[in-house]
Amino acid sequence: MEMKNGSVVLAYSGGLDTSCILLWLKEQGYEVIAYLVTPHTTHGVFIEDLRSEFVQEFIWPALQANAVYEDRYLLGTSIARPCIARRQVQIARREGAQYVSHGATGKGNDQIRFELTCYALYPQVQIIAPWRIPEFYSRFRGRTDLMEYAEKHGIPVPVTPKAPWSMDANLMHISYESGILENPKNHAPPDLYQMTKNPEDSPNEPDVLEIHFAKGVPVKVRHVKEGTCKETPLEIFCYLNEIGGKHGVGRIDIVENRFIGMKSRGIYETPGGTILLHAHLDIETFTMDREVRKIKQSLGIKFSEFIYNGFWYSPECDFVRHCIDKSQESVEGCVQLSVFKGQVYILGRESPKSLYNEELVSMDVQGDYDPCDASGFIRINAVRLREHNRLQGAAQKKL
Amino acid sequence: MEMKNGSVVLAYSGGLDTSCILLWLKEQGYEVIAYLVTPHTTHGVFIEDLRSEFVQEFIWPALQANAVYEDRYLLGTSIARPCIARRQVQIARREGAQYVSHGATGKGNDQIRFELTCYALYPQVQIIAPWRIPEFYSRFRGRTDLMEYAEKHGIPVPVTPKAPWSMDANLMHISYESGILENPKNHAPPDLYQMTKNPEDSPNEPDVLEIHFAKGVPVKVRHVKEGTCKETPLEIFCYLNEIGGKHGVGRIDIVENRFIGMKSRGIYETPGGTILLHAHLDIETFTMDREVRKIKQSLGIKFSEFIYNGFWYSPECDFVRHCIDKSQESVEGCVQLSVFKGQVYILGRESPKSLYNEELVSMDVQGDYDPCDASGFIRINAVRLREHNRLQGAAQKKL
Amino acid sequence: MEMKNGSVVLAYSGGLDTSCILLWLKEQGYEVIAYLVTPHTTHGVFIEDLRSEFVQEFIWPALQANAVYEDRYLLGTSIARPCIARRQVQIARREGAQYVSHGATGKGNDQIRFELTCYALYPQVQIIAPWRIPEFYSRFRGRTDLMEYAEKHGIPVPVTPKAPWSMDANLMHISYESGILENPKNHAPPDLYQMTKNPEDSPNEPDVLEIHFAKGVPVKVRHVKEGTCKETPLEIFCYLNEIGGKHGVGRIDIVENRFIGMKSRGIYETPGGTILLHAHLDIETFTMDREVRKIKQSLGIKFSEFIYNGFWYSPECDFVRHCIDKSQESVEGCVQLSVFKGQVYILGRESPKSLYNEELVSMDVQGDYDPCDASGFIRINAVRLREHNRLQGAAQKKL
Amino acid sequence: MEMKNGSVVLAYSGGLDTSCILLWLKEQGYEVIAYLVTPHTTHGVFIEDLRSEFVQEFIWPALQANAVYEDRYLLGTSIARPCIARRQVQIARREGAQYVSHGATGKGNDQIRFELTCYALYPQVQIIAPWRIPEFYSRFRGRTDLMEYAEKHGIPVPVTPKAPWSMDANLMHISYESGILENPKNHAPPDLYQMTKNPEDSPNEPDVLEIHFAKGVPVKVRHVKEGTCKETPLEIFCYLNEIGGKHGVGRIDIVENRFIGMKSRGIYETPGGTILLHAHLDIETFTMDREVRKIKQSLGIKFSEFIYNGFWYSPECDFVRHCIDKSQESVEGCVQLSVFKGQVYILGRESPKSLYNEELVSMDVQGDYDPCDASGFIRINAVRLREHNRLQGAAQKKL
Repeated sequence: MEMKNGSVVLAYSGGLDTSCILLWLKEQGYEVIAYLVTPHTTHGVFIEDLRSEFVQEFIWPALQANAVYEDRYLLGTSIARPCIARRQVQIARREGAQYVSHGATGKGNDQIRFELTCYALYPQVQIIAPWRIPEFYSRFRGRTDLMEYAEKHGIPVPVTPKAPWSMDANLMHISYESGILENPKNHAPPDLYQMTKNPEDSPNEPDVLEIHFAKGVPVKVRHVKEGTCKETPLEIFCYLNEIGGKHGVGRIDIVENRFIGMKSRGIYETPGGTILLHAHLDIETFTMDREVRKIKQSLGIKFSEFIYNGFWYSPECDFVRHCIDKSQESVEGCVQLSVFKGQVYILGRESPKSLYNEELVSMDVQGDYDPCDASGFIRINAVRLREHNRLQGAAQKKL
Repeated sequence: MEMKNGSVVLAYSGGLDTSCILLWLKEQGYEVIAYLVTPHTTHGVFIEDLRSEFVQEFIWPALQANAVYEDRYLLGTSIARPCIARRQVQIARREGAQYVSHGATGKGNDQIRFELTCYALYPQVQIIAPWRIPEFYSRFRGRTDLMEYAEKHGIPVPVTPKAPWSMDANLMHISYESGILENPKNHAPPDLYQMTKNPEDSPNEPDVLEIHFAKGVPVKVRHVKEGTCKETPLEIFCYLNEIGGKHGVGRIDIVENRFIGMKSRGIYETPGGTILLHAHLDIETFTMDREVRKIKQSLGIKFSEFIYNGFWYSPECDFVRHCIDKSQESVEGCVQLSVFKGQVYILGRESPKSLYNEELVSMDVQGDYDPCDASGFIRINAVRLREHNRLQGAAQKKL
Repeated sequence: MEMKNGSVVLAYSGGLDTSCILLWLKEQGYEVIAYLVTPHTTHGVFIEDLRSEFVQEFIWPALQANAVYEDRYLLGTSIARPCIARRQVQIARREGAQYVSHGATGKGNDQIRFELTCYALYPQVQIIAPWRIPEFYSRFRGRTDLMEYAEKHGIPVPVTPKAPWSMDANLMHISYESGILENPKNHAPPDLYQMTKNPEDSPNEPDVLEIHFAKGVPVKVRHVKEGTCKETPLEIFCYLNEIGGKHGVGRIDIVENRFIGMKSRGIYETPGGTILLHAHLDIETFTMDREVRKIKQSLGIKFSEFIYNGFWYSPECDFVRHCIDKSQESVEGCVQLSVFKGQVYILGRESPKSLYNEELVSMDVQGDYDPCDASGFIRINAVRLREHNRLQGAAQKKL
Repeated sequence: MEMKNGSVVLAYSGGLDTSCILLWLKEQGYEVIAYLVTPHTTHGVFIEDLRSEFVQEFIWPALQANAVYEDRYLLGTSIARPCIARRQVQIARREGAQYVSHGATGKGNDQIRFELTCYALYPQVQIIAPWRIPEFYSRFRGRTDLMEYAEKHGIPVPVTPKAPWSMDANLMHISYESGILENPKNHAPPDLYQMTKNPEDSPNEPDVLEIHFAKGVPVKVRHVKEGTCKETPLEIFCYLNEIGGKHGVGRIDIVENRFIGMKSRGIYETPGGTILLHAHLDIETFTMDREVRKIKQSLGIKFSEFIYNGFWYSPECDFVRHCIDKSQESVEGCVQLSVFKGQVYILGRESPKSLYNEELVSMDVQGDYDPCDASGFIRINAVRLREHNRLQGAAQKKL
């Protein structure tokens, strides 16, 4: 007879891996509490619906930061992990479980994101990561081993053949990697994408939207022609996913640098998030002071790296989030944009808080501006350059 | 009888403004040397063809830096100005002229870019900027005044009615601003764009290209289906302009922050440059170490600000260009991409110098990697977070 | 008869320059309101005592930021200027004056600091900077001209011969420049310093102090042996000036880069500020998370540049000040230090909010730490390095 | 009979720990190659004299970078580790040893610095870190266990009682930590310091030196009064250690953040390095363009973090070192300074490559500078501030 090792809360996705892990943990003598979240939309088994808090507490702050990792990845998986792990830890505390477990592999970023969140919020927790336990990973060397184990123990086994890649879906995006995608030269097959239409098959007419922002987050989306309006965070985000998906927006194919030091190839589709990033960049630059923006931009890049590496719950993320939040106070107004064939086109914007001054910038009227000032401005900026030239005696050389 | 004030080299575009300035300078007693460059492709009057050096000495370094101002603008005008002014100064030195002049306005960035270049390369030069001289700008208060002056003095006057905005074209891009665009809410009229087709009217079939890089710059472009190949910098760039233009790639509508402290609205189309930016980002991340990339990314952002503000010829730009150049040593390989309906899709990449290690990252084979190491990695990264939690006693609060 | 040009508030120091300017402005037809502040302690004429607000609203935020320009200068003049100009503008508004004036030269930083503050807080203000008005500076080409003018108009003229350099004193520091100091090779004469004793003549016994911090600012100073205690900002700062001055603390001789693009040589003495900087650095690192500190450090460097360049009142300074303030929430505790012969020695520190964990770090006890984790941590950190090596095949080359 | 496990190169310090480790490794069946370096000056057993390469290849680049960790620590230990480990790996390769070993503890930074260097330069190496092997650290739970083991096996045991702290000495500095120093409130005992005299007992006369730099590194030191001259890197550094030590220069007491996430208290004395840092900062700012300096400063901070964390041999350190090296091309000239009672005072400087322009900056002559330009410069800089004010309507609020 097995001895009880205590309770473990397992982040259960309903897939083959975590189904087997669930059973294996029981075999090891643990009492297992399975926990499913809807950001993983697979299988329709919903124990916890975290979608609203995911949008408001995770997607919105990332949007305020224009969070993009390595210039392209919108961090859809990275911000889902702390959201999932936070609830997992809440359940563990509530249920008096001293263990948590997950099915993330030993080479990826997700193990880190899950576990750093757990340690940060529940420092005494013990973590069981089967894919890093030799006993486990030596026993299950591939999908076949898992299938056999599942069948033997009556775990329902997926009947559809597995795609030759792995995918991970949540409200914000789907990511694809592994399998045939591991060769970075291989093109993604056309049937891979689940959230977005192929732009070649998408409508031949754009949809024009109006997105209203307050404090750097969307508060209303309106379809200009149809008049459709969405005003709660979850509804806004789902609607933008729908429009973006319909027009094939937000597909990227990249090689990225994992926290553990490997390069990996990932394909992502982030329809709603991509529309919002374009709109937010526009309204932010329209309303934010230039120098504040420079500082905020560099904070946003750091924030993205922290999130990617799993440090959502950390002193540095708390700090940067606070700073970025402060920068968004005047980021308010409305952006008009068109969504068409995989692309987002900004059409125009207005704001009650813009620093844009039409009279000042006009080529037709002078405004409160004396062009002669520019001569002095330029000449003083040239002092340093002329000194440098004097010393280098190098002007001629450069010519 | 007028007295001779000396020689002035005028950056002449062939347009109404600089035509009038040319005459006005003569009226003031200067001997005027008009100088035209082909980055301004208007009017077919080519005195100096700077296109090759523009691509190699200006566009290529900007590409290596992934130079983008305020997250969106590819700096097509900003890098053209030092290229033009450098030749202007060469001519001035050669001709013994102590003056240079230009038609840039007193509220814009271009006056700064022109003049800082002139001061940096020819510190003793005197600059005549008529649009900042009260005598000039009080006399010519609008287009009508210029037209009258031109007609009166036999300067050929444009017969086509002026578009209600201004545009500036060079090999890299066209920018549009002023006039009806000054209201940031106004949409750009559909007939505005000159370099790119409207994506709604662009082909329904993508073009697939292969771009080969060495040291971070393109060395060959091949059309996969048609087999077309381009191998010199100028040909490569022109060909990508053609393909990008055909598919409507590279249109943006932004509000940006000028160096003089105003916000202004600009519309840009940069077809070839946009394709190259996508391709370069891909091959760079594929071949560059993660931590080098982080540093290089922040240098690239600074570089973009320097360029935008007119400091191409400056100690800081020299320095950063040197550093970025160093970072590109291994940025080599080939990117496959598809161009379609305003968008660029990366399809795959390969490189003899990639740090990507298919075996190491594979989910199917272990490679030279022990997953158990990750446990220690995560736990050590958690030391600081757990300490923070201990002090804050705040885990509960966050849950 | 002169015509009235309106009222001008003059930042009057009581010295020769501003005395002459005062008269000259009257000659030009202005009604002049002279305004003296005690940060300039010269001449005992106190109209406005800004010392308390200078300490709390300017020195304290600079201290929280560890504000140091170009690694050495503690910004004593830079933060005094916005303090002075703010009051000047308040007086101007109150008195309905549309002009302000100052005696700063046309080559220095102070003109910028004064005027940017004025424009930021009173955008409609007109500024009269006589040292940039040809009419004025052509008339007064040197000290002799000023002396003659003063004598002729009955302005009291300094009887003591002028030192062959200029100095500027406030509560925080004295700066010395110009004259014989313009040759950067010349040593500062021993009798130059006014606030600090020559360390060669300072006491042969250290003073040991205890400085208590809360939210990153000092709230109490105690002399350990003598028991003297100071608890208000102004008293604390004056007392540290006294102790620092007695021991010759805070003298530097540097060449710095002015905002207008010149290098200039400056000598500064900042006794109290230097003691505080050492103490604050200590307690900050003791209590602040490492990664927060890194971000805060880079913000502090930017903040220092903004302040130096005159942007105290600017969106970017507001923003950064807010962020830095946030970072100081837990910077609390007590530092013991010794002041002796020009140097400050940190002796020890304690804090109720420190992240220092004596048990965790101890070499004698294990604490909640498993040394085996470090192996995994190191090996994962090495993944990237080993990959790099693999590619470079370069280990041998390096050996 | 023991089985041979292969050869291991042990970084041997001659102290109790590594003496025991040496024996223990033999017990485990390894053939041990002991390797001593003189940066550890203990015990007079010199196998490898790395001092010259330590100065030129490690201290000089750190100096060029003004490398300082967390604003105070000059990284004396951090740069010694890669120097030692590099040779260790060279020996291992030469001797065909597949193992290396060291006596660093499991909580410190040194284990990381040693091992990352080894992995970077010899990716296939196996590392034996006894203080992380349960078998070892459970057996030797304290100094007493080591002493007993040593006595039992005839290892010479230190006769002098151990100081109640640990120290680590090399050519650049000595660090002290652990034991009674673990309580961050405890003052360092006066007899702790070995390299520097107590400033209270140091000479009452300063020594004045002249340090000559080329490309950012010292090439000559001259004692102004005595005429002593040193011109090779090792001699220069040793001489500055001597002068600095004599005057008690370079003592600090700090709490720092280790890479593994703990705060630890360290006391350091770095006499020669501290003098050089002051001198280098001076000549660098004297000769380097302001904007280049800003970028270089931020690179130097990153470089310091990389070094501290053990990444001397890494792509990012290679890259940053290259960039910093480039920045030093014009850092040339001579600094005069005085060393006295724990402090370094810069007295003056000169350089054939300085950007300092005495005529330009002079208050007495105008030089090639028009003060009127400053008005335009300031007004253009104010455009943004006035716009901000306009929008905020907040000037009054601030007053």
